[in-house]
Amino acid sequence: MAQTRLATFRQCSPRLIDLSSDFRLRDVQLYKTWYGHDHACPELLSAFVYGVPELHRQAIAQAPLVTGAGCLATATILGLYPLARAGVLSPAMPIVVEAKVGSSATGNTPSLASHHPERQGAVRSFEPTGHRHTAEVVQELSGSPPLSVHFSATAIEMVRGVLTTAHVFLQQPLSDKDVWGIYRDAYKNEPFIRIVKEHRGVYRYPEPKILTGSNFCDVGFEVDAQSHRLVVLSALDNLVKGGAGNGVQAMNCMLGLDETTGLQFPGLHPI
Amino acid sequence: MAQTRLATFRQCSPRLIDLSSDFRLRDVQLYKTWYGHDHACPELLSAFVYGVPELHRQAIAQAPLVTGAGCLATATILGLYPLARAGVLSPAMPIVVEAKVGSSATGNTPSLASHHPERQGAVRSFEPTGHRHTAEVVQELSGSPPLSVHFSATAIEMVRGVLTTAHVFLQQPLSDKDVWGIYRDAYKNEPFIRIVKEHRGVYRYPEPKILTGSNFCDVGFEVDAQSHRLVVLSALDNLVKGGAGNGVQAMNCMLGLDETTGLQFPGLHPI
Amino acid sequence: MAQTRLATFRQCSPRLIDLSSDFRLRDVQLYKTWYGHDHACPELLSAFVYGVPELHRQAIAQAPLVTGAGCLATATILGLYPLARAGVLSPAMPIVVEAKVGSSATGNTPSLASHHPERQGAVRSFEPTGHRHTAEVVQELSGSPPLSVHFSATAIEMVRGVLTTAHVFLQQPLSDKDVWGIYRDAYKNEPFIRIVKEHRGVYRYPEPKILTGSNFCDVGFEVDAQSHRLVVLSALDNLVKGGAGNGVQAMNCMLGLDETTGLQFPGLHPI
Amino acid sequence: MAQTRLATFRQCSPRLIDLSSDFRLRDVQLYKTWYGHDHACPELLSAFVYGVPELHRQAIAQAPLVTGAGCLATATILGLYPLARAGVLSPAMPIVVEAKVGSSATGNTPSLASHHPERQGAVRSFEPTGHRHTAEVVQELSGSPPLSVHFSATAIEMVRGVLTTAHVFLQQPLSDKDVWGIYRDAYKNEPFIRIVKEHRGVYRYPEPKILTGSNFCDVGFEVDAQSHRLVVLSALDNLVKGGAGNGVQAMNCMLGLDETTGLQFPGLHPI
Repeated sequence: MAQTRLATFRQCSPRLIDLSSDFRLRDVQLYKTWYGHDHACPELLSAFVYGVPELHRQAIAQAPLVTGAGCLATATILGLYPLARAGVLSPAMPIVVEAKVGSSATGNTPSLASHHPERQGAVRSFEPTGHRHTAEVVQELSGSPPLSVHFSATAIEMVRGVLTTAHVFLQQPLSDKDVWGIYRDAYKNEPFIRIVKEHRGVYRYPEPKILTGSNFCDVGFEVDAQSHRLVVLSALDNLVKGGAGNGVQAMNCMLGLDETTGLQFPGLHPI
Repeated sequence: MAQTRLATFRQCSPRLIDLSSDFRLRDVQLYKTWYGHDHACPELLSAFVYGVPELHRQAIAQAPLVTGAGCLATATILGLYPLARAGVLSPAMPIVVEAKVGSSATGNTPSLASHHPERQGAVRSFEPTGHRHTAEVVQELSGSPPLSVHFSATAIEMVRGVLTTAHVFLQQPLSDKDVWGIYRDAYKNEPFIRIVKEHRGVYRYPEPKILTGSNFCDVGFEVDAQSHRLVVLSALDNLVKGGAGNGVQAMNCMLGLDETTGLQFPGLHPI
Repeated sequence: MAQTRLATFRQCSPRLIDLSSDFRLRDVQLYKTWYGHDHACPELLSAFVYGVPELHRQAIAQAPLVTGAGCLATATILGLYPLARAGVLSPAMPIVVEAKVGSSATGNTPSLASHHPERQGAVRSFEPTGHRHTAEVVQELSGSPPLSVHFSATAIEMVRGVLTTAHVFLQQPLSDKDVWGIYRDAYKNEPFIRIVKEHRGVYRYPEPKILTGSNFCDVGFEVDAQSHRLVVLSALDNLVKGGAGNGVQAMNCMLGLDETTGLQFPGLHPI
Repeated sequence: MAQTRLATFRQCSPRLIDLSSDFRLRDVQLYKTWYGHDHACPELLSAFVYGVPELHRQAIAQAPLVTGAGCLATATILGLYPLARAGVLSPAMPIVVEAKVGSSATGNTPSLASHHPERQGAVRSFEPTGHRHTAEVVQELSGSPPLSVHFSATAIEMVRGVLTTAHVFLQQPLSDKDVWGIYRDAYKNEPFIRIVKEHRGVYRYPEPKILTGSNFCDVGFEVDAQSHRLVVLSALDNLVKGGAGNGVQAMNCMLGLDETTGLQFPGLHPI
């Protein structure tokens, strides 16, 4: 585990990006609650910057210690951050996030669960409740009081890719145009975030398959005409924007490079 | 459309099962709201029995007019019916249902959306809000006041199959054992409903792929240890229990046959 | 291995069907050539009947010892048997068989090769030459001199299913009608063999996907208008007609039961 | 069709690359045999250079008219060209090529054959004999007398990608090392051809899935220890090296650019 070898790593370099899940949470008690054991170097938890440039670009640029983010957490956070920032979410109502994820998210160790005859075509509810990424989402999006985030994850037939479908409830109804404005304000200068919302065609909402290999996080939404609900969709490649690609983006910030260096692959279609 | 030809159909047979979506809603105004046009024979809407035997077995047995149910509605209703019946759902809180569905649900007419290079590997949010099956779910599960049901549907890489993930909030926390009891009471004599909830193994929750070709609806649940949320999972084959198979089951009821006649295929594994 | 425990098995029952690959070859030297080691009970090799009822129905009915057949061998043999029987194959020319096979053929032990992120979408040439089933095909189809069979196997994206594409060369050109006659003569009374050859539509030739779960072996062919080549296609489910289902069929023969007992599942469409 | 509009195209540009199949064959009679109608401008057939740089680099550099090549033909030709060039193929024996291909090869027009519920999981023998690419292969590889090429194509579950498995017979046995030498001589300076032949691991032979989006054609082989057969495997992405990518490579040749310009995407793994 990274937490038990951090001293060694720090001797190798004055600045680190840790892509493991050891330093994502700032709160030591929260770590224990979600990971089930005491942290090996709790005093460092607050020293790490959560490495999502769209939220913490300035801090990352100067930080000696940066942590990567969970793939499902990244998608969820980037989908909901503009709404949290704009203060339009109803604090009394739950946020329900249903994540769809491919087989590469579970790592490269073969098991019966990843054995092709069992895994192919699966629609497997592997974490209906209790998914650890919930804690990252709450940490990054909450003001006070904290948001009530309810998270589920379902493994589907796919190797790379994440789609999160977040159901949020607004304090008051907003028009499509209002919501567009909120997202545009938050993301208009972001190189890796695209708002995807079309009235026709096959790709009307974010779709992970055409993001394979790319560092984009595509975000879209639909206003429920019959209620205060807003559905927010976020798609990314868990091995790029949800993993190593985001790490490269954070490194580019830290080194003062153009943030898109090495990350310009646009994706493929059809695929 | 069935509604414009019903008179003809009735001349052919004294008893009918309509598998189209024309007669699923009892309320003529609700029909117009969800289907966008006036119904051609509104006087007959209340004459049809909603053909899910688990809810309306007695009525189906005697009815001259029975309607089939939507595939996503059937999965959702069978997942939530025991909870609604037991009165444990919090009326102040939303019910959020996220449905995953295969390509056969869209019918047999080729289009760009179903063209294999576009459809293969898709995670397509085709109805984030406004799915018509919502109305069936509300109709069948609500007492007064009506439940607040929020429905989304995502098309995934699969031909047959539905998994609905329903997030509901309980009036007060319930243990696993409590919830088991509620489901067992409702379904202990049902030939086509199985409660699937294992602590280990690959198939811990309902999984549509092993139901391909079968008339089962598998139902499972997980209590969220950190909130009042309960996640309910339902799986079925949209062309069998979510379609023609359920129609055969209803016909068996109507004719006084053993309800499982012609429906005993157990599914395949691996697949 | 079955060969080291056969004495024990024989004490359990006077009649045995061995579904392993230990007793498929009659010739002890051939066994060593293809399996790379001496056989543990060579004296019994010639006592086993090769358990494909379409070739050895009478012998199976009376045999105390029956062996199952390889899944790829079964498809190949059933595709070519009518031609070998009719004596129309050119002895000077090679028979080239290219088999496509799903992931269940490799068994239920997880490995890197079967790990879903590696195996999904694969088109993997796992045995371009040297596939052991070659020996079974030569044994079952050859008169004297032996046929020159060249076999390759490719693993594709599929769980169950085999398609063998066999390219054979005829002594003299034959019309479609001639070839139809040859197949009809051989298979007109077979309950599990269907000749599939349509001029239009999506399913013009044998297709394994619609055989999933069934005991059929579908066989088809196309005459090459420009040469003496005939292409023969055979499809089956490797876990049914290529495995346990064929074993049940052989058992039905041995017990004097109707040969289709327990094997009447017709397959699913779409799937 | 390009052949009926060629005069117009020539007015637009002094140099053309035609990616259609209109000008791939040099012989007007051969065109009629395989395409079933007279060519609209037969006098131009011999003016086009077959645009595979590995065979015709010099001619392409200077040609005003270049034609693209069929995706299956490109894979087959690049797999067999070193052997034909080295003169090691037995002229008396057939060459049998079995091609596996994805759904994007059939174009972007939806049909029942490409409808996802029918196409998903298919192993469809769509051209057991009579595939037009056969003529290109014969044209490009034959000296005199012509080679006897027998071609089949099977559509499998895949969007992009081609694997051709070619069974050829050698005049005399060759060792692995001999064959390596033949391929190295032919391809040692080629930027887009890699010889793939490993003794262990998951990717021992060419595999199209890891070539998705790249311009590589990976080639491998296996010597049959029991006969004169050599099995040659070629993989490429039909939309890149088997299509537009090869066109860009040809254009680079024509313009004197570095041949890899715009074509450096290495592919993705896992995918």
